[in-house]
Order: sequence, then structure tokens, then C-alpha cells
Amino acid sequence: MTHMTLDRKLYSPSLNQKSDALKSDALRALQELQDKRCAGKEWTGWYQWPRDRGFKLRDDIKSWQKSLDVKFDLIVVIGIGGSYLGAKAIADLSTHTYSHIRREPSALTPIVFAGHNMSESSLSDLLDLMAEHNPIVNVISKSGTTTEPGVAFRVIRSWMERRYGAEAQKRIIATTDAQKGALRRLAQENQYQTFEVPDDVGGRYSVFTAVGLVPLALAGFDIDAFLKGADEVFAACATTDSAVTRTVLEYAMCRTAAWQAGKVIEVITYPEPRMRNLVEWLKQLYGESDGKLGKGLFPVSLECTMDLHSLGQYMQDGVRSMIETFIMPENPRMRSTRISVPVTDNNIDDIQYLENKHIDDINATAMFATRIAHAEGGVPALELRIKDLSARTLGQWMTFYMISCAVGGLMLGINPFDQPGVEAYKKNLFALLGKPGFEERSKTLRAFS
Amino acid sequence: MTHMTLDRKLYSPSLNQKSDALKSDALRALQELQDKRCAGKEWTGWYQWPRDRGFKLRDDIKSWQKSLDVKFDLIVVIGIGGSYLGAKAIADLSTHTYSHIRREPSALTPIVFAGHNMSESSLSDLLDLMAEHNPIVNVISKSGTTTEPGVAFRVIRSWMERRYGAEAQKRIIATTDAQKGALRRLAQENQYQTFEVPDDVGGRYSVFTAVGLVPLALAGFDIDAFLKGADEVFAACATTDSAVTRTVLEYAMCRTAAWQAGKVIEVITYPEPRMRNLVEWLKQLYGESDGKLGKGLFPVSLECTMDLHSLGQYMQDGVRSMIETFIMPENPRMRSTRISVPVTDNNIDDIQYLENKHIDDINATAMFATRIAHAEGGVPALELRIKDLSARTLGQWMTFYMISCAVGGLMLGINPFDQPGVEAYKKNLFALLGKPGFEERSKTLRAFS
Repeated sequence: MTHMTLDRKLYSPSLNQKSDALKSDALRALQELQDKRCAGKEWTGWYQWPRDRGFKLRDDIKSWQKSLDVKFDLIVVIGIGGSYLGAKAIADLSTHTYSHIRREPSALTPIVFAGHNMSESSLSDLLDLMAEHNPIVNVISKSGTTTEPGVAFRVIRSWMERRYGAEAQKRIIATTDAQKGALRRLAQENQYQTFEVPDDVGGRYSVFTAVGLVPLALAGFDIDAFLKGADEVFAACATTDSAVTRTVLEYAMCRTAAWQAGKVIEVITYPEPRMRNLVEWLKQLYGESDGKLGKGLFPVSLECTMDLHSLGQYMQDGVRSMIETFIMPENPRMRSTRISVPVTDNNIDDIQYLENKHIDDINATAMFATRIAHAEGGVPALELRIKDLSARTLGQWMTFYMISCAVGGLMLGINPFDQPGVEAYKKNLFALLGKPGFEERSKTLRAFS
Repeated sequence: MTHMTLDRKLYSPSLNQKSDALKSDALRALQELQDKRCAGKEWTGWYQWPRDRGFKLRDDIKSWQKSLDVKFDLIVVIGIGGSYLGAKAIADLSTHTYSHIRREPSALTPIVFAGHNMSESSLSDLLDLMAEHNPIVNVISKSGTTTEPGVAFRVIRSWMERRYGAEAQKRIIATTDAQKGALRRLAQENQYQTFEVPDDVGGRYSVFTAVGLVPLALAGFDIDAFLKGADEVFAACATTDSAVTRTVLEYAMCRTAAWQAGKVIEVITYPEPRMRNLVEWLKQLYGESDGKLGKGLFPVSLECTMDLHSLGQYMQDGVRSMIETFIMPENPRMRSTRISVPVTDNNIDDIQYLENKHIDDINATAMFATRIAHAEGGVPALELRIKDLSARTLGQWMTFYMISCAVGGLMLGINPFDQPGVEAYKKNLFALLGKPGFEERSKTLRAFS
């Protein structure tokens, strides 16, 4: 069963007390979300997604995969924000760190990403990589007009057409709006295989839709277990007294209490480098959901033990403006082989006391040491424990976060599903680049330079 | 000549005014640093390093390289914090994104890193990579007893000895204390080539010492231009009215004014993915220098345009607790080939207005659009402009930051060269792992679990 707990022993006593007082607010928010009568209710299609549409979609993807008649050894995903972060989070966790480099094939086909920046050097390096493989391309964009994926797709599309001729169209899959938009039109014109970005699910809540499932299925990731994990959490949240519901609510309450007490940063601390993009996914989820109307905790990541040797000093003794949440998989291993500290015939390096210990166990101890050190330094510390990093647990974990984030946002009094602030940058960019229709804004902006 | 400017047009008028009022404080701090009579003066060996010792060290490294009689195609650097961040910053900037994967050799030998975490999976993946190459290992640790590099080096050392037998000793280079410590003893015992970590330079100020120069020279990076760039900035700072000195002081003044006005975060925004570890280096420099006695701005990075689609909403409309510094290389290119938006025969994707534009130019426009959007959203924005990302400019740039950071720290009234808070975690870890001598602390800690 779902195994997920929140340890608040090292959270501050006063924040724990404030947090407990928020119980009825949290319950009300969860109820409104489940009844789809909360702020932003038109964006709650992700709630109960597996049962409503996810399992059906899984079947569609699987039967399409069987009919796919191209060979590929590299998946190129073009997308930005919610259109790539979920798949990247899981791809980086599940594949070998050097997967696109190893001569032996790895269990999963490597996924690389484009269209999430506008760096000429990065794109040029990616084209070099593609030239040495047989790539398949999945372009993901609701509208098809966001500048970054739009530009990357034009470049990559013409590269694919030059290389593959007519076969290029079989190697390009578009995930986009069901009816309208530039990418839908392009897909029709070129007869690309398409999948749908649903109207009622925002980018940061879309990892279980075709946005996440298509590239993950192509890579060979177990999307079935992933969806089942999600479904288990939705099922557990149907009753208010399940352990999962309690954890969902408690985490939202702890964060809200911290915000009300004047904290402005949540540091998300994790023990395993390959969890980095899982935490980037979290930063988008929380940053975009909460960060409006001058509210919300600014989400920051801390990779252990690496960042202890760069930000550790500040965490210990800088401004006390943050809380810290440790995410601890009880079994963080992704490989079957284990590594322990070898025995040597002398002890010149002075670490005899670590001999024969598994490195992951030393790491877990380091995380505990850190939690105590930071708590003693005045940073309230939470620990969220999950079982492991398997597909099923990841499905549970991401669903847990989506629900808890939505509940917390509703408690803050904001709409957790929109992102009006992102538009400011997009409009400025259109205006400065001379897109037709933005001439007035363009004049105003030129005055700044 | 050195080309580095600070644009504060989009900084807040009141912060600019507060900042100007700090001029004499800043000048005094710079003078104290140059005279080596400031707080932490025993750690100021980095100031004027190239002239004092750096150029001599460069010659030593170069003649040693000529005598090196092993072939290698992969450099493994073992170190944590200041022992690896400088080299990683530059290696990631200068090599191909997929350098350890491409069948064609790249201009620089790839460098990979170990000992900066305690992840079993990461270490296991790294050993797989090493098995497919002929690696050389540079272990970097002042004391040799820090847990992470200590553990990684024991594992990698025994792997190298199994693979190479007696030749392993020629493939291991130790950078450590000149006289004492576990790593020095180990190097003597095994007759490794050694280089020195100086006593008067802390980790985060050590990139121009053997700590940074040895791996970079092995990779084929132009350490000569790098040191010359550093020297140019020290030379320019000898007079208080040079453009460089003005920029050094102004940046320290702007940050100090923000801190005094109640800001708690500095977001460091950059336009190029491969600058990520340069900014990680900066985060260590500032986080460890400033974050003490409850003071300092918490350094956070924002990678453009990627993170605009995750943290952009918060930047635009969340709590107004931050300032933002944009780092803009005027020419960010690392490759000679250019990519522009291709022309298509229809305009279905609706980006005709971008045709034939270079992608890096679109990116520069996006950075400008962002700066205006965030400033209008109430985030005071600075822009630090540098010429490019060449070895010489990087030398200038890192030196600029080290001086400005030290000046700012002295203005805050702290010692910018120590890191007492990092010790709390290290001591807890020793105690929990059962290191002899930490038994009392261990008992206290067990009570938390």
C-alpha cells in the first residue's frame, strides 16, 4: 500500500501548533477540490485522472506503440515548463547517468530535451548527438506558438526532413490541443501521429496525461505502475482519515503555518543527484501555484551532500527566513549492484570506521546529521519519507504533491491552477521580437534600452 | 582590456540612492583587503595570486605535463565544495554537452566528478563510464579526511589498482596540504604526483591555485589566458578610479543596500545552460562568504529561459523579497557554427517573424524582456555584462566576483573567508558514523531519532 509519512519532530514547536490549528481549513480545501467547486475548478481534470481517462489513454498509447514501424535509439522531447518537466524528472531518475554515452544499451531508451531554452550552443550540441543516433521526436505544446519550442521545432523539423525525407513524418509525434492551434494545424498538414493536451489540466499537473506518458512509454518506462500508483493515492484520499490524506493535509498545513509566521523560502533537500529534476518539477508545481498576489514560499532546492558544501553555511547561520523539507526515499537505489567502503591493509586515509558500510547508508546518516544541524541552527525541518524510487512510488509521490499543493494554495486564498505572471514575459518577448499585433507594447519597451 | 559593466537602470531608484551612499564604506573595505589587514586576513593569499604565485605554478604544471607518460581520455576529479566547483564551472562551459559520449574526440578532454556526494547509484554509473575509458584521477582535499571525497577515493583507488596494477600510481594525482594530513601521507606512501593546496587560500577562492589549474590543464584548457585574465583585474583594481574598480565596488554596494533594505534573496539569472555550474560556483562563493551571524542574501539561480516557465510566476508576482542580477555575456557562443530559424514555405507554426534570426539573438531579447517584466513586477534588477565566455574573460570574471564578494562581506561586518557553520554538519556526521573521538556528541544525537 501507499507508504508516505511526514516527520515533524524537528519542525518548530510553535509552527507545529499553528499548523494543527489549520486542520479544518485544510479539510475544507480538500473537500472543495474533490467536489470541483474550488477556485480554478475548470482546471481540475487531473483529479482522479487515472480512473476518468488515464487508464484508457494508457491502452491507446500501448496499441499505438505496437503499430509503430520506425526504429529509434534516442527520444527527443521538445517542450518547456510543464510540457517537459515531468518526463525529464522521471527519465533522469530511471536511466543511467551516462545512458546516451555507453556502448552497451541501457534498459530504457534515453530521452533528451530541446525547446526549453534558446541557447544556440545547446541546440548545436543536440544536433551533433542526434546525428549519431536514430532519433524520434515528440513535440509538446498546447498552442504551438510558445517561442522556445516553436523555434526548436522549426530547426529540428527541417533537420529531420533533410535527414529522413518522407520518413521524417513517421518520426515526429505531436502532443497538442485536440482541435485548434498552430501545432495541431502543422500535424494535420504533415500527417503526424498526435496525442491530446486536455483542456482541463494545466501544464504542471499534466505528467499523467499524454504530455508525460507518451515519451515515458516510448522510453520503456512502466507507465502502468506509474498510473496505478497515482490511482492509489486518489483512492486513499477519498476518506479523510486515511494515513495518506493525513499526510497530504499535514504537509499543506505546515507550509501554510510557515508562510503565516513570516517565512519566505522553502528549501527542498534531497539525497540523490538523480532526483534533481524531480525537485525541479516540484519547484514549478509550487512556484507557479503559490507565487501570486505577493504570497507563497519561494521554492529552492538543496542537493545533498553536494550543496552542504556551498549553501550549508548559509543554512546554518544566515537569515532565518526558511523552512526545510527533506525528501527521503527509504530505498534510494536504482542499481542492483551495491558499493561499500573497501577494506585496505593500512588506514592511512583515516576512514577505517566506515569499512564495509554501504555508501547509501552513509548518505542516509549524513541526511539525518544535516537535519539535526539545521534544526539546531534555527531552520524548522520536515521530513517526507517515501518507500523508494520505483514507477509505482513515483506515481504515488507526484500525486501526493499535486493534491497537497492544490490544498495549500486554496488555503492561501489563491487560484492554484493559473499563472497570470508568466504572460508578462511572453508578451514582452513577442513585442520586442516584432510579432505582428504587439506594436504598441514594443514602443513602450524600447524606451527601457 | 577588461570589459565588465554593471547596468542599474532597472534597479530600484531608492536602492540606487542607498547604494551610492555606501561608496566610502566600500572603498575602505577594498583598501583593507588590499592591505591584508581585514577580517580573515590570514586567508587573503588569493589576492594578487597570479603575480605572487600563479604564473610560477603554471610553469610547474606545464613542465610536469610534458613529462607525464600515461595516455588518458577521461579526467576524474574527486573533491567537494571549493575543491571541485571552479573546475566544474569551467569544464561544463568549455566542453561539448555530450562530450563523453560522442565518437569524435572533442577539443578538450572531458572531466567528470566524484566525491561531491554519497550516492551509490552515481558512483556505480561513474565506474561504468570509467570502465569504457582510460581515466586519470585527480583527488583534491586539503585534509584528506572529509567524508565524501575520502569514501569516493577509497572506492576509486581500489578500482584503479585492480585495473591498472602498479601503473595506477602514475594515474593518480593528489592536490592537498603541503605537509600534513591523511591525503599527503597516502600520496607519500604511494608515490603519487602531488600539488599543493595553499594555507592562505580557502576553497571557494581557490580556482586559480592547483585546485583548479591542474584538472583544467590536463583537459587542455588555456590556463595561461585564464590566469592573465585574473591578473588584469587585480591590476585594474590597483587604482580606485578604473572602470573595473568602479564595477567591483558598485556591485558590492548594490547588494549591501538591498540587504539593508530588508531583501533576503539574490536571484542570479543567466541565459545559457552551460553557465549553470559557473553560477553554482557563485552560489558557494556568496553563500559561504555572507551567510553568517544571521546576515546575507540567500543566493538562488534562475536559468533562462527554462526557469521562467517554472519560477517566472513567483518572480513576477510572489513575495517581493528578492533582487535579481542578470549575468549577460555579450557573445555567449561556444561553437563556431551558427543556427538561425529556417525559412519554410508556409507559416503554419506562426513564427515567420523570426525567420533568419540567430537563436542566441532571440535569447538575448528574451533576457531583456524578462528584466523589464520582473522590474515592472517590483523586483529590482541589475545587469552585469561581460564580453564572452573565453578563458581570459572567465579569469577576469571570477576574479571580479571574488574581490566584490570579499568587499561586500567586509561591508556587512563579517569575516568573508571562514565557514564555521559547515562544521556543525561535519561533526554530526562523524558522531553518527561512529568516528573515534565523537562519542559524546553521538549520544546526544541518537536522542533525536
